Amino acid sequence: MEKVKCIISYDGSQFSGFQIQPKKRTVQGALEQALTTMHKGAHVRIQASGRTDTGVHAKRQTIHFETPYSIPKANWKQALNTLLPGDLFVQDVSFVPDSFHARYDVMEKEYRYYVWNEKEPDVFKRNYAYHFRYNIDMAAVQEACLYIEGTHDFTTFSSAKATTKGSKVRTLFQVTCEKQGSEVEFIFRGSGFLYNMVRIIVGVLLDVGQGRRKPEDITALLGKKDRQFVGETVPPQGLYLWNVKYKSLD
Amino acid sequence: MEKVKCIISYDGSQFSGFQIQPKKRTVQGALEQALTTMHKGAHVRIQASGRTDTGVHAKRQTIHFETPYSIPKANWKQALNTLLPGDLFVQDVSFVPDSFHARYDVMEKEYRYYVWNEKEPDVFKRNYAYHFRYNIDMAAVQEACLYIEGTHDFTTFSSAKATTKGSKVRTLFQVTCEKQGSEVEFIFRGSGFLYNMVRIIVGVLLDVGQGRRKPEDITALLGKKDRQFVGETVPPQGLYLWNVKYKSLD
Repeated sequence: MEKVKCIISYDGSQFSGFQIQPKKRTVQGALEQALTTMHKGAHVRIQASGRTDTGVHAKRQTIHFETPYSIPKANWKQALNTLLPGDLFVQDVSFVPDSFHARYDVMEKEYRYYVWNEKEPDVFKRNYAYHFRYNIDMAAVQEACLYIEGTHDFTTFSSAKATTKGSKVRTLFQVTCEKQGSEVEFIFRGSGFLYNMVRIIVGVLLDVGQGRRKPEDITALLGKKDRQFVGETVPPQGLYLWNVKYKSLD
Repeated sequence: MEKVKCIISYDGSQFSGFQIQPKKRTVQGALEQALTTMHKGAHVRIQASGRTDTGVHAKRQTIHFETPYSIPKANWKQALNTLLPGDLFVQDVSFVPDSFHARYDVMEKEYRYYVWNEKEPDVFKRNYAYHFRYNIDMAAVQEACLYIEGTHDFTTFSSAKATTKGSKVRTLFQVTCEKQGSEVEFIFRGSGFLYNMVRIIVGVLLDVGQGRRKPEDITALLGKKDRQFVGETVPPQGLYLWNVKYKSLD
């Protein structure tokens, strides 16, 4: 058996998320269908670095699967892209050791979140950014980002529905926010992320940007370890799984 | 009766074109449905500067309609946008004289066409630009643009299916092409456009960009007055109705 790693990108707007579900159009479903076709009907199960929710996009998601076939890398890429729909694309194929696992071996993930910060919506951005019509105090948001960076218990900033057992301590290497024109870009790089963590953090950062909280409030919020103390999760269409890094492979 | 002019934008990817059709999701259908709701079930017919095909976008399309209501401009805008779907937005509402007509009074239209010029597709651009993987000789395309600018009989560059009777002479004030990064932008400003004219011209300009035709061939092609002498119509998703200008109103 050969273990194949793929870097894929997808426009999440027409998918019911990553994870396979009966009768829904999902990223995993589309990939496994293409692989099953290539394997003459034999089901091929894929493993991803993690799931993404309905409407969330990916620039460089990583998956792996096992196959009895010996096919050159370029042919895998070509064959899969021929079978996949236009909103799902395999960017890169490589062969990895048996020991590789797309989820367990993640060293670092990067997420980005995009906000369209204008009074009026833009029809071309409705699936690709969160329309936030209020003025944002960028200096305050940037100061708040510094309180989020680092190693913390992120219980306050994860979905109460999260099924994760064990520690909710994670390390964020980078939390930054920049505005270019009408677009606000948040970058999060970290060792791992809890369920809904990026979207909950962005919600709190936008509260800070509106003056509804102070940057230094973040420390107290982290200390609460309770999701109830922070506001709404921002919508999925602004979120992009931007990159996934592995140990020695990259 | 009051005559109301609206500037609207729409993402054409989920519409079966502008013109109303039974059981299809169209821009005209969505607008007339919203207006009919506002008019308590009385049907309101709209007139547009022109139609756009399935998949074609609009940044500033113009429509007009008549109403017995006296409602302030801002309230029209608010009420319509509340009733319209997210991929169709009313940007501006104004009141116009009885004599105004969105189609007959057009002075100038601007179309833009976007090409994503990379070897590989980008899932986020599949509905918003034409993926053209071959190298483009920009200097040759820019020279060819100069042969298209001006007043010509554009029969060669219009759909054989066109129902237009009368003259196929049109004046193009501007035909330009610029590349920024991986994106090629064509701008067309003219007194009027025949059916499929922009998409047929872009196809010929890309032939020139690939070296399959010479810029100076354009003159002979115009002289043929026959659609059969030029290649394929490029796909709709790269095309944007960018602006419509009227006489004294703007």
